[in-house]
Amino acid sequence: MQKHAPAIGRRQFLGGAAGVTLSALLAGPDALAQGSRFAPAIAGEPHAEWARKAQALMPALQSVEQQPLALVKMIPDPAQILRFRVEEDASITDFATRSFRKGDSFILDFGGHRTGHLSFDLETVGREPDAPARLKLTFGEVQPDVAEPLHPYKGKISEAWLPEEIITVDYLPQSVKMPRRYAFRYVRVDVIDTSPGFAVKFGNVRAHAITSAGPMPVPMGSTPRLRRIDEVAMATLRDCMQTSFEDGPRRDQRLWVGDLRLQALANYASFRNNDLVKRCLYLFAAYRDKDGLVAACVYEKPYPRYGGMHIVDYAALFNVTLRDYLDATGDVATARDLWPVAQRQLELIERWISPAGLFIDPGNMWIFIDWSNKLDKGSAIQGLLTFAWKATADLALQLGLRHEAVRLSRRAAMMTTAGRAAYWDAASGRVLSGTARQVSWAGASWMMLGGLLSPREGRRALRAALADPAAIRPSTPYLYHYVMESLIACGEKSRALALLESYWGAMIDAGADTFWEVFDPANPLSSPYGDIHINSYCHAWSCTPSYFLRT
Amino acid sequence: MQKHAPAIGRRQFLGGAAGVTLSALLAGPDALAQGSRFAPAIAGEPHAEWARKAQALMPALQSVEQQPLALVKMIPDPAQILRFRVEEDASITDFATRSFRKGDSFILDFGGHRTGHLSFDLETVGREPDAPARLKLTFGEVQPDVAEPLHPYKGKISEAWLPEEIITVDYLPQSVKMPRRYAFRYVRVDVIDTSPGFAVKFGNVRAHAITSAGPMPVPMGSTPRLRRIDEVAMATLRDCMQTSFEDGPRRDQRLWVGDLRLQALANYASFRNNDLVKRCLYLFAAYRDKDGLVAACVYEKPYPRYGGMHIVDYAALFNVTLRDYLDATGDVATARDLWPVAQRQLELIERWISPAGLFIDPGNMWIFIDWSNKLDKGSAIQGLLTFAWKATADLALQLGLRHEAVRLSRRAAMMTTAGRAAYWDAASGRVLSGTARQVSWAGASWMMLGGLLSPREGRRALRAALADPAAIRPSTPYLYHYVMESLIACGEKSRALALLESYWGAMIDAGADTFWEVFDPANPLSSPYGDIHINSYCHAWSCTPSYFLRT
Repeated sequence: MQKHAPAIGRRQFLGGAAGVTLSALLAGPDALAQGSRFAPAIAGEPHAEWARKAQALMPALQSVEQQPLALVKMIPDPAQILRFRVEEDASITDFATRSFRKGDSFILDFGGHRTGHLSFDLETVGREPDAPARLKLTFGEVQPDVAEPLHPYKGKISEAWLPEEIITVDYLPQSVKMPRRYAFRYVRVDVIDTSPGFAVKFGNVRAHAITSAGPMPVPMGSTPRLRRIDEVAMATLRDCMQTSFEDGPRRDQRLWVGDLRLQALANYASFRNNDLVKRCLYLFAAYRDKDGLVAACVYEKPYPRYGGMHIVDYAALFNVTLRDYLDATGDVATARDLWPVAQRQLELIERWISPAGLFIDPGNMWIFIDWSNKLDKGSAIQGLLTFAWKATADLALQLGLRHEAVRLSRRAAMMTTAGRAAYWDAASGRVLSGTARQVSWAGASWMMLGGLLSPREGRRALRAALADPAAIRPSTPYLYHYVMESLIACGEKSRALALLESYWGAMIDAGADTFWEVFDPANPLSSPYGDIHINSYCHAWSCTPSYFLRT
Repeated sequence: MQKHAPAIGRRQFLGGAAGVTLSALLAGPDALAQGSRFAPAIAGEPHAEWARKAQALMPALQSVEQQPLALVKMIPDPAQILRFRVEEDASITDFATRSFRKGDSFILDFGGHRTGHLSFDLETVGREPDAPARLKLTFGEVQPDVAEPLHPYKGKISEAWLPEEIITVDYLPQSVKMPRRYAFRYVRVDVIDTSPGFAVKFGNVRAHAITSAGPMPVPMGSTPRLRRIDEVAMATLRDCMQTSFEDGPRRDQRLWVGDLRLQALANYASFRNNDLVKRCLYLFAAYRDKDGLVAACVYEKPYPRYGGMHIVDYAALFNVTLRDYLDATGDVATARDLWPVAQRQLELIERWISPAGLFIDPGNMWIFIDWSNKLDKGSAIQGLLTFAWKATADLALQLGLRHEAVRLSRRAAMMTTAGRAAYWDAASGRVLSGTARQVSWAGASWMMLGGLLSPREGRRALRAALADPAAIRPSTPYLYHYVMESLIACGEKSRALALLESYWGAMIDAGADTFWEVFDPANPLSSPYGDIHINSYCHAWSCTPSYFLRT
């Protein structure tokens, strides 16, 4: 998930007709000053017992020390998707003999992405050091991060996220541990100054990769390319698995419900750190709003707390995540403990569903589905909520709550009927959304996943959407996941596999070590923030190829 | 003292005829690459027992927590020596209610200079903080440090000394302790970014002033102005008294012999932390060159060591400092312990003195006297060395080494005779130095202090130099001290007091809270480094008004 709740109301989730751009959504201070059109988010009393349970499940982070592989240079190359090719500049043995002065810079390649810390010994050459050394360090997930200047920064979100640090090291020689956690493959060092009298050398440079994921499983897949996709997806998940499932380790670093569901699915198929899922479920349960609505995200640091934002689909997906957890672990006790939270989500969302079963946008709630700002979300949210109702009914059934299961299933059936009437065009075999009768991958996928379409109808609708050049396509790997899930649900496994290879495979072709937050194959250098240097190139919601390839 | 040994040889200390500018002296890398024309500085084996004694004398640093007094603004004002006048912008009570966003800045005034740390609580206003906060902090000793941009930096010495820091604070709200030690009265904060969603507030801002000096004595002096001069001088000394007598807490932060002598004198008259002097004497004794020559400076951190630079006059002043220490403390044991070091200094310097007693510049040794690059140093160094010989003879006498005392006194008498013949022009009553027969305050002062002139001759020579507009004047408070000391030595007490009031008093008029590294009354905005923002405004060698006012 992203970290910014757009500070606007109805127009956004009813589509782009009003011309709202993402930039405008993220415009920030002005919108904030005028007051958000969202319903006010008011924290409830934290649930002490669940908060305690979440705390007790705090994982130990494993730290692995890693050496850089080489000094590299970035060569501009229009043939590369990210516009730079990496060439070795010097070996690490060579690097150990080099010294650097004011204005010098170099780029270290650690050969793959990690979340973690950086340490080195700063030694001096020349006279006794008669000044501190001032250095700028830039942490690159991908080549442009370290090949191009990050300033002037043109992005719409906080410049504080730019992965750079200026440090001044007194009392040389000195061991340096960089003060924060970073997400990086490359580290660029610019020597701002030493003094005219001495140069610096860098000894014992080490990354300290941290994760709560545990060791990487052997990649799976029927071809080397698929195994590489699995490997990169697992690396993505590993680097997001910290004391919670973070959305991305470079930026935001927060636990979001929608991202959690996808990470949990991939985790069940790979690292199997199921207690981390359990901890996250308890965090969401403990820190809700005053009515009991699950927040879109929660904060872990400096102390766990309510995230102050709500997304209708994310609240519903809490229930799906809990059901998935029960399926994966058989942990009935936790599912039973948290059942009231699941039940409460549907009670709260029910307020926006007509007696006949159609979701009516209240105009003051954030509906996400995808970052695409042209998307009419009507059909997709109807499908998603029906999907959540059915998952909750399934959960009730597994907990022995038969009466509740039946009641929820009946309601899901009404939602199915109402949704079909509103969005399914049987004549053309398409899902149509909004007054503009918009066709989208999102609509077809969620209507299929929600069971509003039969597999045969779903195949038809998905094929129509995927073949329609005017259809609204996903703008995030998050929605690509649900397209994949729905293709598989309607029996289109080979089409799903082809999509996986073409979409995630294209990131592999671009040199990805971890999968990205946003990737539009037609426009791979796009950023929803106005500056690609602020994009996150290791983003949890992109990790589900491992789920698909390993299950 | 300064931190940069000019990487050139003879031309410098024979005066400016060759057109060597300070910038050239500090040119650095090129000069270094070509190899210094100084004799190579090669460390000797550290003296383990003296190193241990120095370590055992490590002082405890006292930390005092201080609150800012107000938020201030700097108003450009040509009537002010430093070009800005300080006005209150808001009270601290007001400040506590203010919040700040991207692009905002403010200046805190702590009402006086200190060496120390800074801490604050960073709180947020608005939505839950969805980004870190990135801040730039600039630590100002004087107004221009925080009133003007420090970039582009035009100075010749390391930019790493510019007193600024960029920090990124994750996981808000958060308590922040700035990572380094700073020297400041003012703290300017520029908010680089928060996020569009939240602003920051600064709670509980505290300076933590540290020193090993102990409590400030009550200022002394016959007028309020003199008492203020004493107070500012003691504050200067206090802020330089850390684990050694540092030359300046903003920059360099190192222990130099010449600075030590002046600080020790002021300390005996004020804080009386005599063990800190003892520690410094042992540091110099423990870490000398391979021949036993005392280094111009030693390093304390990260571990004590030889400073790799030598100054002839500083090596000689080690002996004077040891004699002063014995006079002030009666600590015969230490003086006896270190006597061989004093003896060795004269043996080594003797190599450059002719049989007749005249110092002959060997061309590969640094002679300091003052930073003035026009000064012909011949007469001054002759006077200074004779002064050191006599002080060493005095030391020997006090240690019961009568034979040695007599021998040294005889040699000093020869140096007196030779120096008078070379530099004293009895006809005109002036000290003349070099082929250009240069008149300087330095030459007259040191010839008087060394006893090469009688008090009557000294008065004549000093009056002539001080009255001569073409005479080379001091460029540092360090040399002003010796002018003062020589005026007193020849009975010109009232002239000395007038000089003290006019020179140090002018810094008071400029708003000084501590006395400066360089101050030229005719050109108060000058910097030997090409940029006044890199000057040090609390510099130990300026602290001796307290010595003069209190003894």
